[in-house]
Amino acid sequence: MVAVTVWNEYVHERENDAVAEIYPDGIHETIADALAERGHETRTATLQEPEHGLTESVLDDTDVLLWWGHAAHDEVADDVVERVCRAVTDGLGLLVLHSAHFSKPFRRLLGTPCTLNWREAGERERLWAIDPDHAILDGIETPIVVPEAETYGEPFGIPQPDEHVLSSWFEGGEVFRSGVCYRRGSGRIFYFRPGHETYPIYHDETIQDVLANAVEWAAPTDRGVTQWANVNVDASE
Amino acid sequence: MVAVTVWNEYVHERENDAVAEIYPDGIHETIADALAERGHETRTATLQEPEHGLTESVLDDTDVLLWWGHAAHDEVADDVVERVCRAVTDGLGLLVLHSAHFSKPFRRLLGTPCTLNWREAGERERLWAIDPDHAILDGIETPIVVPEAETYGEPFGIPQPDEHVLSSWFEGGEVFRSGVCYRRGSGRIFYFRPGHETYPIYHDETIQDVLANAVEWAAPTDRGVTQWANVNVDASE
Amino acid sequence: MVAVTVWNEYVHERENDAVAEIYPDGIHETIADALAERGHETRTATLQEPEHGLTESVLDDTDVLLWWGHAAHDEVADDVVERVCRAVTDGLGLLVLHSAHFSKPFRRLLGTPCTLNWREAGERERLWAIDPDHAILDGIETPIVVPEAETYGEPFGIPQPDEHVLSSWFEGGEVFRSGVCYRRGSGRIFYFRPGHETYPIYHDETIQDVLANAVEWAAPTDRGVTQWANVNVDASE
Amino acid sequence: MVAVTVWNEYVHERENDAVAEIYPDGIHETIADALAERGHETRTATLQEPEHGLTESVLDDTDVLLWWGHAAHDEVADDVVERVCRAVTDGLGLLVLHSAHFSKPFRRLLGTPCTLNWREAGERERLWAIDPDHAILDGIETPIVVPEAETYGEPFGIPQPDEHVLSSWFEGGEVFRSGVCYRRGSGRIFYFRPGHETYPIYHDETIQDVLANAVEWAAPTDRGVTQWANVNVDASE
Repeated sequence: MVAVTVWNEYVHERENDAVAEIYPDGIHETIADALAERGHETRTATLQEPEHGLTESVLDDTDVLLWWGHAAHDEVADDVVERVCRAVTDGLGLLVLHSAHFSKPFRRLLGTPCTLNWREAGERERLWAIDPDHAILDGIETPIVVPEAETYGEPFGIPQPDEHVLSSWFEGGEVFRSGVCYRRGSGRIFYFRPGHETYPIYHDETIQDVLANAVEWAAPTDRGVTQWANVNVDASE
Repeated sequence: MVAVTVWNEYVHERENDAVAEIYPDGIHETIADALAERGHETRTATLQEPEHGLTESVLDDTDVLLWWGHAAHDEVADDVVERVCRAVTDGLGLLVLHSAHFSKPFRRLLGTPCTLNWREAGERERLWAIDPDHAILDGIETPIVVPEAETYGEPFGIPQPDEHVLSSWFEGGEVFRSGVCYRRGSGRIFYFRPGHETYPIYHDETIQDVLANAVEWAAPTDRGVTQWANVNVDASE
Repeated sequence: MVAVTVWNEYVHERENDAVAEIYPDGIHETIADALAERGHETRTATLQEPEHGLTESVLDDTDVLLWWGHAAHDEVADDVVERVCRAVTDGLGLLVLHSAHFSKPFRRLLGTPCTLNWREAGERERLWAIDPDHAILDGIETPIVVPEAETYGEPFGIPQPDEHVLSSWFEGGEVFRSGVCYRRGSGRIFYFRPGHETYPIYHDETIQDVLANAVEWAAPTDRGVTQWANVNVDASE
Repeated sequence: MVAVTVWNEYVHERENDAVAEIYPDGIHETIADALAERGHETRTATLQEPEHGLTESVLDDTDVLLWWGHAAHDEVADDVVERVCRAVTDGLGLLVLHSAHFSKPFRRLLGTPCTLNWREAGERERLWAIDPDHAILDGIETPIVVPEAETYGEPFGIPQPDEHVLSSWFEGGEVFRSGVCYRRGSGRIFYFRPGHETYPIYHDETIQDVLANAVEWAAPTDRGVTQWANVNVDASE
């Protein structure tokens, strides 16, 4: 059992009826329920809460943080971003979802533009296993098919991934690295592309299974063991 | 100007009229002409020649070797394979083309199965830049479109590439890492997917430009400088 | 509990009294005992047995294979090497020890010369954690100190590792990547430098702990799930 | 010829007589002279200048930026740091020197703590080639010996490097990845460890040669070609 916090900017669901119909309680609640059903201990946090619900104590009690944002990246306070990034390098797992490719924490931790091509055309997506033995694909049959999705296309402005797990095919002619892993300090980061506010993708059982696997994968095993600090050391005996 | 040897098993063109019509003198001659037009010094070699045309002296006079094979991988003599692999780790550049993903030298140098999914359906292929700044894409507009191609699909049984340059989209629903780079010893290896015997793909100007760029990229810069040997060394002063 | 086979060429111990004194039953028995004490199910195999003790059935019953060789690399039959390499890409874990950097299976799986500088001077070695959070270092205090060791030095003729876990410092002035990880097909490979026939290094508790951790890490989790084969597939629905 | 700007916080040289004796005009001038002698077009900038001497126009006219800092990392304005990081992802080359491992731009671009162990004991350092064929080592004999150096030790809190060029051995018992390469967007980054304010290391011919090679390596080849932006694209024909 992993202690999970699902963070959502929670804007579209409150302002757009079509989105509210798919995610009446917000994307965060749908994901949190799916992870709870799979045995994880979940809580949620949103942009609107004080400190966006990501206080030091919440982060201290969290093993893996999921991040969903799209319309309000700039409204996330820089000190909270710094706190999250420091927590990640101290061992917090981070799952970055869909349009959060452009979120402040992801761009800060990767150091790259994290830009891409995109198109809203309700196209069919197929996610192929690049690394079929990866723990995140444990028990997952590939290709994973998403009947209607927002299209993302390369080039994706990210560093060479430490592990490349999945790539997507889109009906309209694009490909995209949809599942990539990074290590930053003691923390593990997984970017997972599927999931747009106007499609019920986070209600899909297989997508939920991938997220649950990723939570297991990203959970810290040596949390706090490695002290990342400049240390003045003596010469060896 | 780079000294290039284009190797071809040269089987389909001699046994299949449809292939002979597209490549009357063999795929090797078409590629060699294209590279010569772009300023490289080219020669060819085929399976049917003594030592498959890859004697020590030919390899010594070669900076970059291109390898095309499909139907006769097993007919390539193991001692020639060993000679080619040793030349690569000594600095020879190697371009591995299309169905040569399953050739003895490529599998020997990578150490993996190099297997994939495939389908002969004359589907449209689009090659996207994953690393648009890579030297192999210098002056190349992406996506590169191939109107009719054999389809390859992931998972591709290769090690994590040192550099991932291109990925393909196929009309029928597959994706594939179509341009990947490896370093082995002092040698540089580029696998490039396009090019099937039943399609005129090697007559395409853009495909020829990519091959010419790859030849430049793979050409040894420090040829022979690094002596890969177990050396008994003295302690430092 | 992991099913482990410890392979040893078993030459020095039978021909050299000084070595026999340190490893009376052979290096393989010392390592097998240490892994058994740590809960693994162990067996051994040696060069002198039929098929070097590595029959198909032995490999089928093995999760992780440890390989120690030094004086007799060339005496290992190529068909056994092919069998071992295929087993690795099918998911067998492989731990490559010390002078086995130059063994046929390691060189075949990496595709590089695997050469290095060396010196037999009984120098002090310190192994530093490059990746202190890695599972192979779970519970291990670094630097690991080996009072007397054969010295290895860079450049080490290997591909860029998938994971770089440890690097060594040597009294005489060398550094070396002493713990590196590779993925080949479905198999995991760990090269671990310490351990020379003329020093009691495999009797060291910490070295034994690292080997036990590496066995856990290399054990297949998806054994046999991924079928690495060229497959003719239909177009997607 | 590459357009180089050498940036220095320029604090120690003005406040410490011992340092001023070694670098009377500042570390930046010594490095700039060495690069100019090797054919590069050089200018300098320091912390004390308006915008730290790194205005948009200076960065626009710069191909490769060298960064030296130690005592005043926190005094570098965040908007200048952002400007430099954006310039890097747009193609600017960045050479990060010695104690600048802890500078704001390096930590921002890597996303990790960038921490290490250290000791000021005037120890002997030997830099070994991990990748002897790398362009940055063109014509350089290794090991490079630095008679007296500040000691750095692993673990170094950086992401897995894209290329690992050099590692250091220190008299007192440490090892360190002293030359590592990263790609961020279109920019190339090289971290090079040698060079402390209390030792005349930047007066060393070989160290200067490495810096000149690194400038060549980091210079943008496709500057401005790749526009890293989120782009709404049409479906393919």
